[in-house]
Amino acid sequence: MQNQHIIRNFIVETPSKPGNFAKVATAIGMAEGDIGDISTLKSGALTTIRDISITCKSEAQLQQVIDNIETIGNGVKIHAVTDDVLKAHEGGKIAMKSRLDVRSLGDLQRIYTPGVASVCMEIVNYPEKANYFTSIGSSVAIVTDGTAILGLGNIGSVAGMPVMEGKAVLLDQFVGLSGVPILLNTSDPDEIVETVKHIHQGFGAILLEDIGSPHCFEIEERLKAELPIPVMHDDQHGTAVVALAAILSACKSTGVDPKKAVIGQIGLGAAGLAICRMLMAYGIDEVYGLDRQEEAQDRLIHYGGKTKSSLEELMQTCDIIVATTGVSGLIKPEMIRSGQIILALSNPNPEILPTEAIAAGAAFAADGRSVNNVIGFPGIFKGALDAGASDITYPMLIAAATAIVNHTKPGELIPNPLDPMLHHLVARAVEEAANMEMNK
Amino acid sequence: MQNQHIIRNFIVETPSKPGNFAKVATAIGMAEGDIGDISTLKSGALTTIRDISITCKSEAQLQQVIDNIETIGNGVKIHAVTDDVLKAHEGGKIAMKSRLDVRSLGDLQRIYTPGVASVCMEIVNYPEKANYFTSIGSSVAIVTDGTAILGLGNIGSVAGMPVMEGKAVLLDQFVGLSGVPILLNTSDPDEIVETVKHIHQGFGAILLEDIGSPHCFEIEERLKAELPIPVMHDDQHGTAVVALAAILSACKSTGVDPKKAVIGQIGLGAAGLAICRMLMAYGIDEVYGLDRQEEAQDRLIHYGGKTKSSLEELMQTCDIIVATTGVSGLIKPEMIRSGQIILALSNPNPEILPTEAIAAGAAFAADGRSVNNVIGFPGIFKGALDAGASDITYPMLIAAATAIVNHTKPGELIPNPLDPMLHHLVARAVEEAANMEMNK
Repeated sequence: MQNQHIIRNFIVETPSKPGNFAKVATAIGMAEGDIGDISTLKSGALTTIRDISITCKSEAQLQQVIDNIETIGNGVKIHAVTDDVLKAHEGGKIAMKSRLDVRSLGDLQRIYTPGVASVCMEIVNYPEKANYFTSIGSSVAIVTDGTAILGLGNIGSVAGMPVMEGKAVLLDQFVGLSGVPILLNTSDPDEIVETVKHIHQGFGAILLEDIGSPHCFEIEERLKAELPIPVMHDDQHGTAVVALAAILSACKSTGVDPKKAVIGQIGLGAAGLAICRMLMAYGIDEVYGLDRQEEAQDRLIHYGGKTKSSLEELMQTCDIIVATTGVSGLIKPEMIRSGQIILALSNPNPEILPTEAIAAGAAFAADGRSVNNVIGFPGIFKGALDAGASDITYPMLIAAATAIVNHTKPGELIPNPLDPMLHHLVARAVEEAANMEMNK
Repeated sequence: MQNQHIIRNFIVETPSKPGNFAKVATAIGMAEGDIGDISTLKSGALTTIRDISITCKSEAQLQQVIDNIETIGNGVKIHAVTDDVLKAHEGGKIAMKSRLDVRSLGDLQRIYTPGVASVCMEIVNYPEKANYFTSIGSSVAIVTDGTAILGLGNIGSVAGMPVMEGKAVLLDQFVGLSGVPILLNTSDPDEIVETVKHIHQGFGAILLEDIGSPHCFEIEERLKAELPIPVMHDDQHGTAVVALAAILSACKSTGVDPKKAVIGQIGLGAAGLAICRMLMAYGIDEVYGLDRQEEAQDRLIHYGGKTKSSLEELMQTCDIIVATTGVSGLIKPEMIRSGQIILALSNPNPEILPTEAIAAGAAFAADGRSVNNVIGFPGIFKGALDAGASDITYPMLIAAATAIVNHTKPGELIPNPLDPMLHHLVARAVEEAANMEMNK
């Protein structure tokens, strides 16, 4: 499986002498294990016990890491290799919680019968108060049909639930929104549109997630047109916001004027098409897309985009290259022109390694590791809901990308997703853009 | 409006002398205001300030309470009259929360990409693990079309949201389940069944709530037949469980053998019909129902029930009378036979006041104030989910009622809903009954 990321936590004991941990790190590095968080569980006079998170690409590599550590000897011991990813998911990652404690019959009468009837009548009399006296205004339905879960493909919406719960976790932790996974058992656009329409009243916005291409395009367009609340397919526009931010950051650090640049997008799936549309909406005239499927290229043309006849031509004529093909190594070093900006975003294996691209003459190169939707969607939804917007529009999305770029430190491609200010700034930028549009 | 319950909190200052609070209580009582929780906000040498929760039946009565307190004089002052019910609902009563903190990039990799992919694949390979690694197994969809919200009628599902959130609060607080309101914008049975079928995979069970009669019958039956997870319409069977428990308690305290009793049910709406069916399932042969609508009586006959020709005949021939008509004062004192058990359950105004019924010769009489679904549904759903049941059946519901009765103290009709043991005992009884059925 191309996409395999095996994350394990190693509980390792070493004699408390300088250099011992370096030996462990070296042993892991020799097997090309990727070291993540390390926490010290015990720091004694004689020995130190650490919890080391290690990411491997295969079971064989994982075994190699274990073997390498075990051959160090001199008192270095692996006490356990645990799967903390699975452990973290036990019982699920989210729960609908009460915001109030029910401790007395008085509490019960206030939050339930008979008191609640007066709140219902308040909403009957003033429907707009539903946003104030219920959770609707802070709830986002996370809707999937399970046809394009991560890079895993059509594994069904139940198997995709851990991703949907992950989105809900991020909405809660980063912007305080209530994300509610909705797992559809149909991928028929008519049935999806009907179903979401029938349940939309309980939510302030709809986040479409991991719905495959091309049916995602029709579903999003119809829901945007037919629902009075914001709808966004994150794999299209959330990704495009973060890609736009990355492109603008790369331009900044290389002194390129993005609006005068010629940009080539390789791969016109959900993300690639959305990136092209976002770049055009941002005001870049020369955007060219390329896909092996003629249908995908026609879709770009339908949205006003242009194409090139071949990968070679695109590489020859564009200043900035963005690739979202999922094809590792698609871009050969000899295709790179001196001074180009290369964003090879496919995960986990990019179309060309940044080091290779730089060696071949690129002025700037990055892969997709840091270009993650998590930078965008929480703030985008928070801003849209705070503004009471009925839609998520290009000016709002561009405002989000601009806020991300403005918050990016020199030398970074995009900001740290755990920076609490980031999501707040994105939300405020989106809210302001929404307000400006509504006041037009 | 018949159903009006105005709950207000009075912030009242009295000089700190014995007897002053009694004057306030008397003033409230003179206006027939119903005193709830009282908390002392300040207990000073000179004055005491209390927060007094008062329920009134009309604005005029509320004003009378205010006037009565203000005319006490002698330093008694109302500082404020607040609507704590509305205040408690600000921002909604529920939120989807993360069960984990996201504090590091390592956390992010574990709960989101790339770590989450391994959990998705675990579910692809072992589908039954979805209950273990996601929140599905502890989630209950609370589905309404808004056509019968409390006693308020067809006010729509958005105005009914405070009730649905209330249910979610109780599921969380009493049994730790995750209740997710689903507000439908259709009351067409075909559309409701289709919609719930399309989204059911995300939930461990379906709680149908405040769906009007008669379409609630078709919707519940079809969903029970077509879905592989437990489905229950609380206004039918949740109410019937609590009614059965109340009937059994009343029999206990009067020495009546319920299985030999003749029971008359007045009113065959969602609750009344379900009570008849529950009593028959419990093993009571002589159950008679009565409704002004012939269609409702035919429905009872369809389920194997019997009817009487008139209210008078029913009152004359039955030992136990249960009324759920919503018609205040329907039962006249002269209809009561000596030794009868009378449960006049309509809220807030019963078919006959318990005091009147006792005065007319009833051996036992109660109204519906304490007969609240909150006693039943949390434990029923918890037990069904813990058992991995695919349905909620009569043996499970009867086990719930029996657990409630066994936990009722002598002299009480049903237990205190805030008793934490209660919901636990109901859940265990339901789980055991489900296991027995599955092992048949």
